[in-house]
Amino acid sequence: MSNGDIFLGELIGTATLILFGAGVVAGVILNKSKAQNSGWIVITFGWGFGVLAGAYTAAPLSGGQINPAVTLGFAIEGTTKWEDVPYYLLGQFAGAMVGAVLCWLAYLGHFNLNADRDNAIETLGIFSTRPAIYHTGQNLITEFLATVALMVPILAMVGGDRHVDGIGDAGLPALLISLLVVGIGLSLGGPTGYAINPARDLGPRIIHALLPIPNKGTSEWSYSWIPVIGPLAGAAIGAVIYNAAF
Amino acid sequence: MSNGDIFLGELIGTATLILFGAGVVAGVILNKSKAQNSGWIVITFGWGFGVLAGAYTAAPLSGGQINPAVTLGFAIEGTTKWEDVPYYLLGQFAGAMVGAVLCWLAYLGHFNLNADRDNAIETLGIFSTRPAIYHTGQNLITEFLATVALMVPILAMVGGDRHVDGIGDAGLPALLISLLVVGIGLSLGGPTGYAINPARDLGPRIIHALLPIPNKGTSEWSYSWIPVIGPLAGAAIGAVIYNAAF
Amino acid sequence: MSNGDIFLGELIGTATLILFGAGVVAGVILNKSKAQNSGWIVITFGWGFGVLAGAYTAAPLSGGQINPAVTLGFAIEGTTKWEDVPYYLLGQFAGAMVGAVLCWLAYLGHFNLNADRDNAIETLGIFSTRPAIYHTGQNLITEFLATVALMVPILAMVGGDRHVDGIGDAGLPALLISLLVVGIGLSLGGPTGYAINPARDLGPRIIHALLPIPNKGTSEWSYSWIPVIGPLAGAAIGAVIYNAAF
Amino acid sequence: MSNGDIFLGELIGTATLILFGAGVVAGVILNKSKAQNSGWIVITFGWGFGVLAGAYTAAPLSGGQINPAVTLGFAIEGTTKWEDVPYYLLGQFAGAMVGAVLCWLAYLGHFNLNADRDNAIETLGIFSTRPAIYHTGQNLITEFLATVALMVPILAMVGGDRHVDGIGDAGLPALLISLLVVGIGLSLGGPTGYAINPARDLGPRIIHALLPIPNKGTSEWSYSWIPVIGPLAGAAIGAVIYNAAF
Repeated sequence: MSNGDIFLGELIGTATLILFGAGVVAGVILNKSKAQNSGWIVITFGWGFGVLAGAYTAAPLSGGQINPAVTLGFAIEGTTKWEDVPYYLLGQFAGAMVGAVLCWLAYLGHFNLNADRDNAIETLGIFSTRPAIYHTGQNLITEFLATVALMVPILAMVGGDRHVDGIGDAGLPALLISLLVVGIGLSLGGPTGYAINPARDLGPRIIHALLPIPNKGTSEWSYSWIPVIGPLAGAAIGAVIYNAAF
Repeated sequence: MSNGDIFLGELIGTATLILFGAGVVAGVILNKSKAQNSGWIVITFGWGFGVLAGAYTAAPLSGGQINPAVTLGFAIEGTTKWEDVPYYLLGQFAGAMVGAVLCWLAYLGHFNLNADRDNAIETLGIFSTRPAIYHTGQNLITEFLATVALMVPILAMVGGDRHVDGIGDAGLPALLISLLVVGIGLSLGGPTGYAINPARDLGPRIIHALLPIPNKGTSEWSYSWIPVIGPLAGAAIGAVIYNAAF
Repeated sequence: MSNGDIFLGELIGTATLILFGAGVVAGVILNKSKAQNSGWIVITFGWGFGVLAGAYTAAPLSGGQINPAVTLGFAIEGTTKWEDVPYYLLGQFAGAMVGAVLCWLAYLGHFNLNADRDNAIETLGIFSTRPAIYHTGQNLITEFLATVALMVPILAMVGGDRHVDGIGDAGLPALLISLLVVGIGLSLGGPTGYAINPARDLGPRIIHALLPIPNKGTSEWSYSWIPVIGPLAGAAIGAVIYNAAF
Repeated sequence: MSNGDIFLGELIGTATLILFGAGVVAGVILNKSKAQNSGWIVITFGWGFGVLAGAYTAAPLSGGQINPAVTLGFAIEGTTKWEDVPYYLLGQFAGAMVGAVLCWLAYLGHFNLNADRDNAIETLGIFSTRPAIYHTGQNLITEFLATVALMVPILAMVGGDRHVDGIGDAGLPALLISLLVVGIGLSLGGPTGYAINPARDLGPRIIHALLPIPNKGTSEWSYSWIPVIGPLAGAAIGAVIYNAAF
């Protein structure tokens, strides 16, 4: 894989992930959406099938990691070369920002309804995660554990001898990882909304700050470092556990 | 594949798709149905498993594209020959009309309840898509983006070297594409109801106009071109992106 | 496959199907069940994963048809020998009755709550299908179409050259067929509750008539022939369509 | 597989299972969780994808049984050697306890809300199963039948000639078994909450008794033997049925 392929694959794949993931929250939250109030099962499957769409799309070019934490984990484990990591990360953050803009365009009419202050909705939750209870230590622990629970199964599925170019390939693993992400959402998303991916959270937060959405509410920068540090730490420790145990 | 096989496969496959897809909306909307008010998760999985049923059924004959936008995308990408395209399209539109009639027959008693004007339901939503907010530009953008998000992943899964006769085969890809369509519904269906397929929308709309359903409401012809043009443009650009990037 | 293996495999597989399928309706309907009122998505996935459990269980012995209509379809198509058909059917009907008894045992305490006449529930819906609107012709058409929509995709997946011992094998097809059955439930279950399987309906109806459930309500014998004849006709025509087109 | 690999694989895999499984119940039950009141479909898919995560994670080391009842069944069937059984069981019970602690940490802020006595929630249901109706015989029968319905399909999928190191491998079987567990939850979970796994129930119950959760309620030791004995008996009889019939 060339550096250009890695960058491009991760950009397209992560943009796809965020278009789906931000899209499903937009669909559930925004006024007049046909998916309004359709619940947690819709949100978690929407994000999971966003992983499916993004990972299979990126796979032929970059293997389909679409998550800086996963890339860090693969680098520590040894599958991904450290000198390739910057190209993965650049593609992932750029893609997350592109995807957030695409989601805004897809739901433009519904975002514009927010001009009516009486029905205005806090829109940050569409772009980035917000904890149910604000508590730095607890929020970090939840994101950390949820990302350990992402990284160790991924490595057990595709690490080492079972190496299949990161995640991707039009084979079974990316499907399994999509369902794993559904599971993490169902089971561990309750406290913080499961970022488990720094690009997924930080990229769309920047876009949220920039977009001209009426009454969009806070971008909550004070919280923004937790869904970056927590997942990176979780993936790193997950890779260390994997290398020690497997 | 002979022209006859292509026509027949796409006809049977698209009829199956619409029987399931129109059927699930009928089940959720119509009075006294056991599935009444069962929500967005039911609608999106119903359509997705309609793709599963239709694509695997068509696969041995025509590869299972069952969508004129997808056929256009495959033609631009190069998998499908341009001279075969008319047979795909004829089968798809004919099949969509057959499927809509079959759905009406399956739910006949429930459609007949609509004779009671007090409980009458607008039935067009069973056959064709209707936007949540009417706005030509926004509706086109949503259908365009949702179909890009269909076409690029499909080509990344089965295009080029990974060519597997369009979509089909009793292998993994048609399952993945079914789940991709569930994901598009969950994530991008909120604004327009995700036609992402001109035959899926226009064929049943014609049938809606013709069927003797009591109090059936408008067939909304003024909107009918958007779910045709939007998906075709999205699939074309999706194929261009794929050919440029992959 | 010996006649004994066919009988035993279909018996165990169909008992498993009915234990799951009747079980999920019991769970949704009966008082104090933890699954009470959990809706149509639960019922349809419960039945679909009952097919998954039953088909994979029967597969090593009999191929996993677990449905007399499917067996009829395979016989007309040519995969299943006509002289084997009686052993399939005997196993299927016996298994359906065993499964219904097992479901009653699993939910015994909840069935016994029905002794309280004020909260008594009509229990037939747990065992057999009941139409939303009683109309012989319409109910037959719905069951007929739903079973055509079961049989043609199954044959397209595993018929002829793609023959894999009926349905089964621990490979992909039985998973796909399970999801197909989820789809039929979501999309076509609204009017009649989708029997699409004579053994699934008639076997448990006999058991319903025999079991000592307090206040169990009618066994509705006047309707009982429709979910037998409709599915058999649908599977037969499905096989004829398949043989003509594929 | 060395004894150490078996112990370690089962420990990591069962900890993953319980982190997901206890986590999804915590998410649905606890105040302020984003998944609160999201229903039975969320709980059953959360547990099922916990099996997916746990089984694939354990697979490279131990095959991924992550359930003492399944280990007993494999030993009776002949796939697992009796002298390895203690290492499986030790890993499973230790892992279940670790997973319960991790779940508590992930939801720490929400558990702490229980200090408010007015809104206090009985927390045992997060860790262990509780029957809907207390009745020793009926509860035993339900757990027994649900575990027969787990064991026979598992053996039909991966037993004997189809042996694939217990359950695991990054192949199809662990996915199928995950969906089977979703199905058991949907269909047979209503009366007792489907332990079907002694380690899943007893390990977290011990942790529930030990953790400093405010107003946590009873650990209900009088019921604790039923979700141990019922599943063990079910798996044993399931293996006997399999050996006799297949």
